[in-house]
Amino acid sequence: MVRVGIIGGSGYVGGELLRILLLHPKVEVTFTSSRQYKGEYVFRVHPNLRGLTNLQFTVENLNELSNKCDLVFTAVPHGAAIKIIPSLINSGIKIIDLSADFRLKNPKDYVKWYGYEHPYPDLLKKFVYGAPELHRDEIRNSNLIACPGCMAITSIIALAPLMKSNEVDKKHIVVDAKIGSSGAGIKPTIATHHAERFGVVRAYKPVGHRHTAEIEQELSRIANDEVKVSMSPHAVNMVRGILCTNHVFTTKRFNTQELWRIYRSFYQNEPFVRIVKDKKGLYKLPDPKVVIGSNYCDVGFEIDENINRLVILSAIDNLIKGAAGTAVQCMNIMLNFDEKLGLENPGLHPV
Amino acid sequence: MVRVGIIGGSGYVGGELLRILLLHPKVEVTFTSSRQYKGEYVFRVHPNLRGLTNLQFTVENLNELSNKCDLVFTAVPHGAAIKIIPSLINSGIKIIDLSADFRLKNPKDYVKWYGYEHPYPDLLKKFVYGAPELHRDEIRNSNLIACPGCMAITSIIALAPLMKSNEVDKKHIVVDAKIGSSGAGIKPTIATHHAERFGVVRAYKPVGHRHTAEIEQELSRIANDEVKVSMSPHAVNMVRGILCTNHVFTTKRFNTQELWRIYRSFYQNEPFVRIVKDKKGLYKLPDPKVVIGSNYCDVGFEIDENINRLVILSAIDNLIKGAAGTAVQCMNIMLNFDEKLGLENPGLHPV
Amino acid sequence: MVRVGIIGGSGYVGGELLRILLLHPKVEVTFTSSRQYKGEYVFRVHPNLRGLTNLQFTVENLNELSNKCDLVFTAVPHGAAIKIIPSLINSGIKIIDLSADFRLKNPKDYVKWYGYEHPYPDLLKKFVYGAPELHRDEIRNSNLIACPGCMAITSIIALAPLMKSNEVDKKHIVVDAKIGSSGAGIKPTIATHHAERFGVVRAYKPVGHRHTAEIEQELSRIANDEVKVSMSPHAVNMVRGILCTNHVFTTKRFNTQELWRIYRSFYQNEPFVRIVKDKKGLYKLPDPKVVIGSNYCDVGFEIDENINRLVILSAIDNLIKGAAGTAVQCMNIMLNFDEKLGLENPGLHPV
Amino acid sequence: MVRVGIIGGSGYVGGELLRILLLHPKVEVTFTSSRQYKGEYVFRVHPNLRGLTNLQFTVENLNELSNKCDLVFTAVPHGAAIKIIPSLINSGIKIIDLSADFRLKNPKDYVKWYGYEHPYPDLLKKFVYGAPELHRDEIRNSNLIACPGCMAITSIIALAPLMKSNEVDKKHIVVDAKIGSSGAGIKPTIATHHAERFGVVRAYKPVGHRHTAEIEQELSRIANDEVKVSMSPHAVNMVRGILCTNHVFTTKRFNTQELWRIYRSFYQNEPFVRIVKDKKGLYKLPDPKVVIGSNYCDVGFEIDENINRLVILSAIDNLIKGAAGTAVQCMNIMLNFDEKLGLENPGLHPV
Repeated sequence: MVRVGIIGGSGYVGGELLRILLLHPKVEVTFTSSRQYKGEYVFRVHPNLRGLTNLQFTVENLNELSNKCDLVFTAVPHGAAIKIIPSLINSGIKIIDLSADFRLKNPKDYVKWYGYEHPYPDLLKKFVYGAPELHRDEIRNSNLIACPGCMAITSIIALAPLMKSNEVDKKHIVVDAKIGSSGAGIKPTIATHHAERFGVVRAYKPVGHRHTAEIEQELSRIANDEVKVSMSPHAVNMVRGILCTNHVFTTKRFNTQELWRIYRSFYQNEPFVRIVKDKKGLYKLPDPKVVIGSNYCDVGFEIDENINRLVILSAIDNLIKGAAGTAVQCMNIMLNFDEKLGLENPGLHPV
Repeated sequence: MVRVGIIGGSGYVGGELLRILLLHPKVEVTFTSSRQYKGEYVFRVHPNLRGLTNLQFTVENLNELSNKCDLVFTAVPHGAAIKIIPSLINSGIKIIDLSADFRLKNPKDYVKWYGYEHPYPDLLKKFVYGAPELHRDEIRNSNLIACPGCMAITSIIALAPLMKSNEVDKKHIVVDAKIGSSGAGIKPTIATHHAERFGVVRAYKPVGHRHTAEIEQELSRIANDEVKVSMSPHAVNMVRGILCTNHVFTTKRFNTQELWRIYRSFYQNEPFVRIVKDKKGLYKLPDPKVVIGSNYCDVGFEIDENINRLVILSAIDNLIKGAAGTAVQCMNIMLNFDEKLGLENPGLHPV
Repeated sequence: MVRVGIIGGSGYVGGELLRILLLHPKVEVTFTSSRQYKGEYVFRVHPNLRGLTNLQFTVENLNELSNKCDLVFTAVPHGAAIKIIPSLINSGIKIIDLSADFRLKNPKDYVKWYGYEHPYPDLLKKFVYGAPELHRDEIRNSNLIACPGCMAITSIIALAPLMKSNEVDKKHIVVDAKIGSSGAGIKPTIATHHAERFGVVRAYKPVGHRHTAEIEQELSRIANDEVKVSMSPHAVNMVRGILCTNHVFTTKRFNTQELWRIYRSFYQNEPFVRIVKDKKGLYKLPDPKVVIGSNYCDVGFEIDENINRLVILSAIDNLIKGAAGTAVQCMNIMLNFDEKLGLENPGLHPV
Repeated sequence: MVRVGIIGGSGYVGGELLRILLLHPKVEVTFTSSRQYKGEYVFRVHPNLRGLTNLQFTVENLNELSNKCDLVFTAVPHGAAIKIIPSLINSGIKIIDLSADFRLKNPKDYVKWYGYEHPYPDLLKKFVYGAPELHRDEIRNSNLIACPGCMAITSIIALAPLMKSNEVDKKHIVVDAKIGSSGAGIKPTIATHHAERFGVVRAYKPVGHRHTAEIEQELSRIANDEVKVSMSPHAVNMVRGILCTNHVFTTKRFNTQELWRIYRSFYQNEPFVRIVKDKKGLYKLPDPKVVIGSNYCDVGFEIDENINRLVILSAIDNLIKGAAGTAVQCMNIMLNFDEKLGLENPGLHPV
């Protein structure tokens, strides 16, 4: 059993890491830390885990962590990871960071999108962007993983296969995202107050959303050209799930077979990407409702006959494929486990 | 009191017409017809009206309708209005049609978007597209009104003010719409079954949605140029409401003052358009949650600093400003009433 | 125009008071106070009122309030009303208090249910319990009204007509209530966080809920005997609305006609109580969904054939009939206005 | 691998059986039948299973079923099981029936609660009521299981431990149940139409609900006395889940330790019953939100200080512990597998 720990275990991502890892056949969760809930039973914060574990939240001495675990997940807020990761690196533990602090390669992007100078620009290059679909080999050979943002990975998986095409307009891609309330984290605010949040379609950040930076970084790398993304996320009335509607203008009319070929060749061996473009049925295209509880990213497409446009749809559970699930997938790769271990639950239907 | 009737009073739009008209101080509802519910009390189908009316659904002889009313609303399904409106016209009654059957001016558009040859191409020109914000004078002088589609009017109100600008790319406008379940009407299907519809973000018609035709028609008229719209509607987890996220690429960087000027000059005298672009607060941009129960269309905007893009947001209650409310607004104009009569309720908050 | 003011205008009840009073034809809102939002525009907190008012929140000198208004609504938290009402009384203004601070007649009940000695036991008798259905004449002749709790009034309206019957077991009445999130007020907590509150059926106070005291007080008065109520409220997944399922054991088998007679004779002249016991239709019994946005309390019943039990169902909009609407109804009575003024909106359907 | 089949695999219970059994390590699903969807891929109806199985729905010859499976689940509507089970019995296959057709022991109860004479009264005694918590040994030794109704099992698990007590009033037990829309099955009707079903608190069967019969049967057996249950179910705004609020009057004041003792001694070895009565935390009492996706039944209690009443709360996922999960639990017992096999997923949080 590999010993793993979780720093920041009391948030929603921490809770999902615990749920997945406690049932994982090849790892043992040796600790989960939380400053706020120090000493509290895990099941008081994550009530679904009642009866499954008697773990209590602790506060760990970072310098002695290598005695406790071989791999650590850091599920702390943006800005907090920067403060702890350098000393974790010194301890030699494998690190899977779920914050945004090490996702971007170009230090200037932190200035542009996050408004601060990154204190460890050299470290940025050492972290692998933890999207197995794009960086599996690097993940396998790295000890430092920066997991993607939830909306970023949803959009990247949808758009990556198109980035090699010369017939795609890479400067006017619209990513219109819809996300559930768990994406806002566990801290209550007026914006997440049920009476205010229920039933909204709230464009909470129509321009300038930080996940844009990750999407542009990863797509530009594949395209070998500067890709510009117009991203607008919306809070909608559900707890889990993301749908990205990716509107892509093209210079020619694509046909269905062509797109099937492009997507199938890109994803045919991916254990957690399903191409959902069915001929019939209520769920012939991706819908987050179907992937809740699973590590799947469903991807589908439609071709506009009125104008040269593709609509690429992608759906995930933001806390699983958008966070904890992808993190465990990376762990499985790093530790040479079967990549699907602990992640095989399908979604529930209906839910 | 002007006598008004409603053909097709048992659907959701019919119900909203009844609610508004029963409380309207200058009209009297003389009948409401429904084939399916003939003889049934209105409050059995529209339970909110219990105690307010003892009307029962009837089935009317269309040729004798002029004895019963001076103005009739036709709230029947698409394709059904075509069959009854010619004989209504002969009776000399003013007609406000809420179907799609007379919205498009160009008969070819019915072939392209609806898949049939329109049987009365000459009638199309006689109907005024019932958007008071664009056609108030024509509405005042007409007896034949074709009310806009719910998503169409939401998007048109958002985009119309920009159509005169040469710095707007009018060929790559993305309209990403989100709509509640009442938009699907009162007939139950597996797609609207609560267990299947709850919690979805369902791109039920990512390309080829028929409202595209109306939006292109109205915007092209204003632009005096062919406008192309890339529209994709999504079913989300609420009953009422539409948010249109209109992504507009531009050839220059607009600034806030400029946009305020454009929108204010277009809408400053409109009783039911509110420009919502506040400096602070949870509702600083349009959200359907705020307009539920009202006839308002809220419009706001953001300017992307990363790319030349405007995000224009517009929100309505699909059954009111998107149907019954706009229809009554048209009626008020046609009958020289105060345009706001019967429509002054603000929304509820929170709801 | 009668001048009215609202102390505590930034909560949900304050917002509904504003919505109703701003459109009321016979009163003028001269101020609305809020410590937290002093100086802020009302529409920033109550976004549905944007365009309807330019009022800003103020903080008032209580001793000079008689210069500003003839009647004041106090919509402050429990415990806060006690502190301000004595000086308001001195100013001679009519007072409609929406807190719990003056609802109970017996000072000992404050010790039992609220855990404190009431500082003004003599004042308790001067306040009239603001349920028009039970105390209309007293309300008309009083300047001091204590509005009922939202679940209390729902249950009281359902049960009052049965309290004169000797065949009803008055010691084992179960009131199982279901309420929306707006009942918890505007302050965000983990309990109202959308991700935690969405989809729950949370028995947040299965025993000892304070509204029990009001229900027992009012029913005991009618029964002229000590009535005991077993109340258990549940938070369910909606924003507005209450359903009370009142389970009443009886010593004989009642029949439908008998119950119709009891309820009709009690409520036949009540403008805001509808008896909903229909023979058919989806809404043949009360459902909060139907009364959202209205001042109605719908009441219906079923008779158990398996055991001598009546199920009395009652539904309201907790912010209207359960708070602001009843308060305005009381105001209309006190000022000799038509009792329905400003309160005639039916609910929306569907919503 | 034991071969199992599912008759009636296209409903929600069938879908959950498939989800659980496809991942079960010791069984193989050899067929799933559906008249309506004959030939259709399973994943078209149960979209969460896409990629997990290529099974197609079939229609089976009942007489040849023993060639195909060793155990069959019948997940057909009430009334349909009666027609097929006799011939299944002849084939010698083990049968786990999820309909109501064989749950009641007394043929007269079918007349009273279901309105028909049971055609096979002798068979009723051969079926074991499939509640492992009450009938584990009989299940182990039987080939014929009738799985409990979803609300019935929720209430029975809550109340069973109290039935031996002489201080409990067994004639006035109120079971106020709240259930999600999946309980109504997969067939769309106006009652389940999203626009009509969203946001309701609908007392759809306040008296005379058929699950009352099962509850009374099982509790009376334990009590060795006639128990009378006053059950009223409510449709609330969620897809999955049941909360039963069981109001129990007592002739003495129970204390907490006593109740802990009663419940712990009854359930301490049960793998899927959790006693949830915590001292703190948002989820200190049962809530269906916490058990969605799991086979747990959470049970908790509160003691009323105002009157001799216990409130016993119980929560399940209606499609799992209320149907497919309990059915698989019974299968595990019948086949001498670890009872928890295939059922160990905890719920998701938040969801």
